[in-house]
Amino acid sequence: MRRLWHLLGVAFGLASAVGCFLVGAYFQHTHATRQLQQLVQQDVYAYYISPKIFAAYARADPQFGFFNIPKGAPNHVQRIMKYGFPGLDDVRLYSDFVLSYDRRNRVAHWVCEHLQLANLQGARGVGRASATYRADLSVPSNFRSTLADYKHSGFDRGHLAAAGNHRGQQVHCNETFLLTNIAPQIGQGFNSGAWNKLEIYVRELTQSFGSVYVCTGPLFKPRAQGNRKWSVEYQMIGENMVAVPTHFFKVIMVESRLPLGKPYMEAYVLPNAPIPDQSTLRDFLCDIREIEHFAGLHFFQGIRRSAIFGSNYPSESKVFREFA
Amino acid sequence: MRRLWHLLGVAFGLASAVGCFLVGAYFQHTHATRQLQQLVQQDVYAYYISPKIFAAYARADPQFGFFNIPKGAPNHVQRIMKYGFPGLDDVRLYSDFVLSYDRRNRVAHWVCEHLQLANLQGARGVGRASATYRADLSVPSNFRSTLADYKHSGFDRGHLAAAGNHRGQQVHCNETFLLTNIAPQIGQGFNSGAWNKLEIYVRELTQSFGSVYVCTGPLFKPRAQGNRKWSVEYQMIGENMVAVPTHFFKVIMVESRLPLGKPYMEAYVLPNAPIPDQSTLRDFLCDIREIEHFAGLHFFQGIRRSAIFGSNYPSESKVFREFA
Repeated sequence: MRRLWHLLGVAFGLASAVGCFLVGAYFQHTHATRQLQQLVQQDVYAYYISPKIFAAYARADPQFGFFNIPKGAPNHVQRIMKYGFPGLDDVRLYSDFVLSYDRRNRVAHWVCEHLQLANLQGARGVGRASATYRADLSVPSNFRSTLADYKHSGFDRGHLAAAGNHRGQQVHCNETFLLTNIAPQIGQGFNSGAWNKLEIYVRELTQSFGSVYVCTGPLFKPRAQGNRKWSVEYQMIGENMVAVPTHFFKVIMVESRLPLGKPYMEAYVLPNAPIPDQSTLRDFLCDIREIEHFAGLHFFQGIRRSAIFGSNYPSESKVFREFA
Repeated sequence: MRRLWHLLGVAFGLASAVGCFLVGAYFQHTHATRQLQQLVQQDVYAYYISPKIFAAYARADPQFGFFNIPKGAPNHVQRIMKYGFPGLDDVRLYSDFVLSYDRRNRVAHWVCEHLQLANLQGARGVGRASATYRADLSVPSNFRSTLADYKHSGFDRGHLAAAGNHRGQQVHCNETFLLTNIAPQIGQGFNSGAWNKLEIYVRELTQSFGSVYVCTGPLFKPRAQGNRKWSVEYQMIGENMVAVPTHFFKVIMVESRLPLGKPYMEAYVLPNAPIPDQSTLRDFLCDIREIEHFAGLHFFQGIRRSAIFGSNYPSESKVFREFA
């Protein structure tokens, strides 16, 4: 009789343990679901991805077990976008850079890179020799630029994220040749001239300082029409109407090696035009806020701007005055 | 002695119940957190809102208790955006419409509305009489248009979401006067002419069919320059450089009242120019895909396009041919 009581006690204890485990799991689940539902009601981007949130949340993924640590890829996106997104329009992830695509102009809004020594030195045999330009088929056909658009257009296929910055793996280099990362550039005196010099300068900064963030993109800058009137004017090339930018910018942020060191930030704007060989890069330094105004972007919002040397130029910079 | 055993048994049972409840809650929490972390690694918008996801998920909100149903506002955004987002650039929520803001041009990319009879009839005394145009202070100053930009510009402050569509509450009507919902329009012959006729037509559709989705926005359409060359050209007004669109579109989707009825979709493009009084709205019907190509947007992606009558016009439409 006493043994029966003991057995009953143990059975009751086990049953209640299992039951309460499940009840606990259930309440935590219900509670969290409710919290997430409220977030989805308040935040439009949460609403947009809500099917994914609830799918990820509600069912177990076969990729990893209940108690295992996930085998997710190392998150290069978190590293590259550490200081914030300049904008959120059609953001696209590649293996070594992140890009926002302008479906109206069929060129990128911006391309963000994080350069370290490993990106530049690269593995043996990795390089642009085996890479080819190609359309990015992940863009819907109605918004996609193709090789035919550039052919006979008189413009170079200019890289935004430079091929020479992505030599860690061949796939990194190949992806810089996707046409989402390409814009129509003047060849002689620009793509093979000043723009190339600027790309080399960015790599030299990386060699010296070890960690450099670069954000590159096109500008469509208004011109003065006299009588205080302004207008924007740019060409479109090809069947798909790919916009030819009037200028290109690079915003550069160098992380300090010192533990409490402040980051250094500077920006360049080059007109999409032949630039004389004797001009130096310093001629094209530009106030970052000016670029933000014309591009409609906000760079490195993760850092307080006042903490950064080199980002506050007095008024309109030389490049905009001379090359408008 | 037997009583002691009983007490011990009950105590053990209770302790194990509480313990297992907590362990269950803990495992469910850990498991779900891991799933969400993986989502954040895979989806860029999830990454962008990840601080909010984890804040919502991890701690109890004081707004409602553990067992209560949340008192969240009725989700008008889910209703208005039922058929998808045309684009994701700087999406802004208002009380009766949703808008995507073009920070580069300082006018909206698109404004989505869902019209029902209640929106049009409105409460007593609600209307535009007590509403005033004002800058939207939620837009950062570097990207904001102001009243001064429109003053003496020669252009009307034209509504994208029409004021007359939002008479349910005074706050709904007032919000249509925020400058994010306003674009520079030709007054005589456009804003007070054909554009007004189109707005009235949309309200008539709502009166007849009960549920109408409208997406309105600007276009910056290329012009032929001869020799198969194209260029985009548009004016900018004011200190803040607000772009003057070359055309405006409205994409309209009428939900069927029949249980299995198909939605009806049509689109209009009007040039931002004086339009003769004798022209009828039918002259401005336009292929939706053509608008999508020039605006870089994708309308009502929640519906299969082939299921919709009225969205496939043969080739370039009359309005684009005549008013290019």
